[in-house]
Amino acid sequence: MRNILVIGLGKSTTYLLKYLLDKSQSENLHITIGDLNTEHAKKLVGQHKQVDIIQLDVFNEEHRKQAIQKADIVISMLPARFHIEVAKDCIAYNKNMVTASYISPEMQALDEEAKDKGLIFMNEIGVDPGIDHMSAMQVIDRIRAQGGKIILFESFTGGLVAPESDNNLWNYKFTWNPRNVVTAGQGGAAKFLQEGTYKYIPYNRLFRRTEFIDIEDYGRFEVYANRDSLKYQSVYGLNDIKTLYRGTIRRVGFSRAWNIFVALGMTDDSYTIDDSEHMSYRDFINSFLPYSPTDSVELKLRHQLKIDQDDIMWDKLLELDIFSSTKQVELKKATPAQILQKILMDSWTLDEEDKDMIVMYHKFGYELNGEKYQIDSNMVVLGENQTYTAMSKTVGLPVAIATLAILNGKIKTPGVQIPITKEVYTPILKELETYGIQFKEEDVPYFGYNPLNI
Amino acid sequence: MRNILVIGLGKSTTYLLKYLLDKSQSENLHITIGDLNTEHAKKLVGQHKQVDIIQLDVFNEEHRKQAIQKADIVISMLPARFHIEVAKDCIAYNKNMVTASYISPEMQALDEEAKDKGLIFMNEIGVDPGIDHMSAMQVIDRIRAQGGKIILFESFTGGLVAPESDNNLWNYKFTWNPRNVVTAGQGGAAKFLQEGTYKYIPYNRLFRRTEFIDIEDYGRFEVYANRDSLKYQSVYGLNDIKTLYRGTIRRVGFSRAWNIFVALGMTDDSYTIDDSEHMSYRDFINSFLPYSPTDSVELKLRHQLKIDQDDIMWDKLLELDIFSSTKQVELKKATPAQILQKILMDSWTLDEEDKDMIVMYHKFGYELNGEKYQIDSNMVVLGENQTYTAMSKTVGLPVAIATLAILNGKIKTPGVQIPITKEVYTPILKELETYGIQFKEEDVPYFGYNPLNI
Repeated sequence: MRNILVIGLGKSTTYLLKYLLDKSQSENLHITIGDLNTEHAKKLVGQHKQVDIIQLDVFNEEHRKQAIQKADIVISMLPARFHIEVAKDCIAYNKNMVTASYISPEMQALDEEAKDKGLIFMNEIGVDPGIDHMSAMQVIDRIRAQGGKIILFESFTGGLVAPESDNNLWNYKFTWNPRNVVTAGQGGAAKFLQEGTYKYIPYNRLFRRTEFIDIEDYGRFEVYANRDSLKYQSVYGLNDIKTLYRGTIRRVGFSRAWNIFVALGMTDDSYTIDDSEHMSYRDFINSFLPYSPTDSVELKLRHQLKIDQDDIMWDKLLELDIFSSTKQVELKKATPAQILQKILMDSWTLDEEDKDMIVMYHKFGYELNGEKYQIDSNMVVLGENQTYTAMSKTVGLPVAIATLAILNGKIKTPGVQIPITKEVYTPILKELETYGIQFKEEDVPYFGYNPLNI
Repeated sequence: MRNILVIGLGKSTTYLLKYLLDKSQSENLHITIGDLNTEHAKKLVGQHKQVDIIQLDVFNEEHRKQAIQKADIVISMLPARFHIEVAKDCIAYNKNMVTASYISPEMQALDEEAKDKGLIFMNEIGVDPGIDHMSAMQVIDRIRAQGGKIILFESFTGGLVAPESDNNLWNYKFTWNPRNVVTAGQGGAAKFLQEGTYKYIPYNRLFRRTEFIDIEDYGRFEVYANRDSLKYQSVYGLNDIKTLYRGTIRRVGFSRAWNIFVALGMTDDSYTIDDSEHMSYRDFINSFLPYSPTDSVELKLRHQLKIDQDDIMWDKLLELDIFSSTKQVELKKATPAQILQKILMDSWTLDEEDKDMIVMYHKFGYELNGEKYQIDSNMVVLGENQTYTAMSKTVGLPVAIATLAILNGKIKTPGVQIPITKEVYTPILKELETYGIQFKEEDVPYFGYNPLNI
């Protein structure tokens, strides 16, 4: 029996657990699920002779160390900031570890010790980060093997609502942490490379500088720039690249309407609104508009942002019931972002029957024998229901597959790492295909930023 | 002989020194000027038997303590963050102290000790803060003495160029720290009160929510909101006020054009631009615009911000030569704000013969016997030349007058304080009038935010 400890049972662990349970017989796995609250796990797994469900407070050092000592490998699905104590114990007790989170500086600092002990600390192996790394590096490595030189890489991901459940004017519902959606793009200018030039977009322009992408059978989407387009430039070996751009996918028209909230200051999370508790939604909007004894909140808003009478953006606002004078904010000492989140959750929370969708799109431009080429590659994954979501599938399956691959010695290289080597991504991407997580690739003409070839 | 130690000899100390020197005979003053660099003081003062000029590094504890021990009162004209060491020594050696700076939390923490020792630590006694406090409190106290209740207080200040030197399209030149002008309004939403409602303006809208004021003989100005309109609400005793708004004065049209820089992200001071050293001004602008192999920087900018062909804003940009492909940024690892500052300094630096201007405008709305009234009050001070500026006059004279008033026992109340009591402002404002620093008051109808009386 090989013992796997899974710490933290979030929304994204349903497929992860299902995978491990399905393999528990054939692979001789014993799975221990540790969480502060064991109810969710019990409901999800039920009785299973190869599963133990234990109450585990990750800040209880004794319990944590006990659980980790018993395991052969540890999966931490905790929020990223809680990984480090688990990681230090894994070093102490010689355990491999897997997370879907970004590598923190504290995690990175364990690299040498992990290597010395021959331990594998695999991180960023969810969907974004995760499948994006693997699917991009597979194509990049293939182009390089042919002698090609990468000159353009653009990569976009979005968590959206599936077409069959897409029934609001924003073509959007919250399928993941709403707070991250409301505050997305804040904290500094978005920076990226276009044709050899660094470009910067301040937050107030971020949602007005979108690009379109088209995906067969799914239609048109738009993308806005991530803040960190250059984050993996050297990790991917793209130091000489001309264009490097990463972004977030939404349905067309989302960003233009979202920019109303940005322009009014309603996404700000840095200060609290006075007496937010007793405000109506209308009062909230009005606090960002000039005082008038007579003019309506509606007309003041239209005038401030120059919104025409027949602009579809307006209907999007009405759909959110944002001008309601009866709906109350009810949150004490709330930031604008927290209040906006509450208003949006009234409208954008998934219904019981709703399904989600993960969309990923890469563009690879390259030079080979003096000619320029481009490959576009996209992945669309649909959720089955509210438990088995596309998000849970695309985050949990890579984590689970990587865990088994480490246990079985298919992934061997030790150290704190992300899945960008052939050793890692080849078997994982191959197995993901059997679960319907696959990319459609297409050769397209290379135009770079000169589509009219002027 | 009474010994006055003046530490730090900036632009704003010319009138301060002149005042003290003029009074040195009649008031028996001996003045010691301490600065890192003694050249400027020597040039300004020349030989004067009642003045010593010493080299003083405020971080040299021994020298600092020595100088402070010899003084009867200490004026610190250092940047605000350097006051605290001086203040602690003043506590230790029982010296009174005067600064024109905002009270820092560290300075405030000395209040009890100062009171115990009977020491006066007078702060915020320049122009803004300073004359604004004094002139506002004088009217507020007078209205209250009549039984009136303040319902509206608006207060605006601007450092501008004098009409006779006003010869660019922005009607603006740098008369004070350019860096503060470039980064003004950043760091959070502007917050204020209008008719009992809190209002918030995010940075990206700050320069589009201006108001006009008119001053006889000087014409029309505009104001944009300060971030901290409510800062002195309780200090002024205005807790029940309906409208409280503070702002910065510019000539009409400045803010609308300035907003181009804000919208493009050119005022951001939080990150550095790659290879800024080798950029032209044109490259700098272009880094905030989408890449195009063909379209001009000019057209991209017009399109992004929807600037019409015949919009005067455009001429303001041209006047700054911001599209120049030959003028180089030349600054290493510079932030957008630093680069923009450099570009602006090409055009907005005062010429030898240029004169500056300080404008202040207050509105006081009040209720008396069931009726509403309003007093508008304004002050305009013109500089004489580049040494004897309006800024130096309005900052330095209140500091100097307060210093002498403390020495002569006219100001008696000890503690860390700002000039908001009758004891302080009455003699100072009266003496300032003899130097031409005076307010014009006018009774106007009270309309609040309902000028059409709808």
